[in-house]
Amino acid sequence: MSQPRILEVRTQILKKNDTLARSLRDRFHAAGVYVVSLVSSPGSGKTAFLRETLTHLHKQFRVAALVGDLATENDAKRLAESGAPVRQIVTGTVCHLEADMVEKALGDWRLGELDFLFIENVGNLVCPSSYDLGEDLRLVLISTPEGEDKPLKYPTIFNTSDIAIVTKSDLAESVGFDREAMYKNAREVRPGIEILEVSSKTGAGMDAWFQYLQRRRTEAMAAETSHAV
Amino acid sequence: MSQPRILEVRTQILKKNDTLARSLRDRFHAAGVYVVSLVSSPGSGKTAFLRETLTHLHKQFRVAALVGDLATENDAKRLAESGAPVRQIVTGTVCHLEADMVEKALGDWRLGELDFLFIENVGNLVCPSSYDLGEDLRLVLISTPEGEDKPLKYPTIFNTSDIAIVTKSDLAESVGFDREAMYKNAREVRPGIEILEVSSKTGAGMDAWFQYLQRRRTEAMAAETSHAV
Repeated sequence: MSQPRILEVRTQILKKNDTLARSLRDRFHAAGVYVVSLVSSPGSGKTAFLRETLTHLHKQFRVAALVGDLATENDAKRLAESGAPVRQIVTGTVCHLEADMVEKALGDWRLGELDFLFIENVGNLVCPSSYDLGEDLRLVLISTPEGEDKPLKYPTIFNTSDIAIVTKSDLAESVGFDREAMYKNAREVRPGIEILEVSSKTGAGMDAWFQYLQRRRTEAMAAETSHAV
Repeated sequence: MSQPRILEVRTQILKKNDTLARSLRDRFHAAGVYVVSLVSSPGSGKTAFLRETLTHLHKQFRVAALVGDLATENDAKRLAESGAPVRQIVTGTVCHLEADMVEKALGDWRLGELDFLFIENVGNLVCPSSYDLGEDLRLVLISTPEGEDKPLKYPTIFNTSDIAIVTKSDLAESVGFDREAMYKNAREVRPGIEILEVSSKTGAGMDAWFQYLQRRRTEAMAAETSHAV
């Protein structure tokens, strides 16, 4: 097996994914739904964070979520506690979501009736980074116990994300979280990246996150409208 | 791009890896070195755990380590603090180690002069599971803050591991770690799997780990000797 052939196969898969992601993005924009994807390592608290986000937004907006996992439907069950419609994508042995999985999972959902759609990727800091899902905003989550070196060790996932969310801020003190080092490392890899710190457990920082999210959506809609004019 | 062609390429890569891993294993056994690999998600504490292990064993045994990472040599620097020889394998965009990377990294090391060789894989709960590295023992590490559902969500990595090490036991209380659920989930996926709980920070549980490791090596050497007779 020669390395070039593997590369060639991979390049073709990525090209196909990019084309499909672009058409998904057009569809999302036309429907007026703002799409947010979440990536992180396993156990950094994506699902708890998303459940709190859905629960809060659900009071005021029309929200829905897709969630990827290798083997179980546990996350969809946890997210459904928010009251929002949720669908699980079981990927089998595939360590990331691809645009065509998203497209299939959307099925008969009427996108024009949604304000926000969230896509929770498989827990992995490597594989998801190369796959555009047509999202407007990509969040990378990193929990305080994981260590401040993660942006340097997984640069591509930080490079391709729009904002870093530091989760489990309630544990910062007990794990000796070095805020300055983490911010420095994240901005070395992705200069100027916005960073928010939250705790899904205590609710700390969640209001700032909700405000950020709504502001980004408003800006995207304004840009879309001026573009249409 | 048809799915069968991708599968075919992947099968050939795995077959090639298995063949090479088998020859590495023969080489390790002939040299009398006991080889242990570590897999886990990013930030579960592999490097801290391995540093403590190397520091302890180094007093009594001849030990060395290889460590895989996508982009940095930070882990090799951290592990070298133990005094043991350490080599970094930078994998680029590849989310796991393969047998040929291990073979190349060994280079001119005289395996006959080692008692233990440790191989720390890239932080990932998906990709490393299918790649045999010729090791005698595979550890999967899971930290208390990651959540008890991880074995169910990443079954293959637990299935292919010989022992589960629960790290950051000092955080168990503050994160509300549910020991019973974690053990149940791990043994649902891999019946009877041995589980040890440790804290690299406080040293709790490390003695039991050192004893376990030495016992496994002694057993492996006895089996090898009786096999030779």
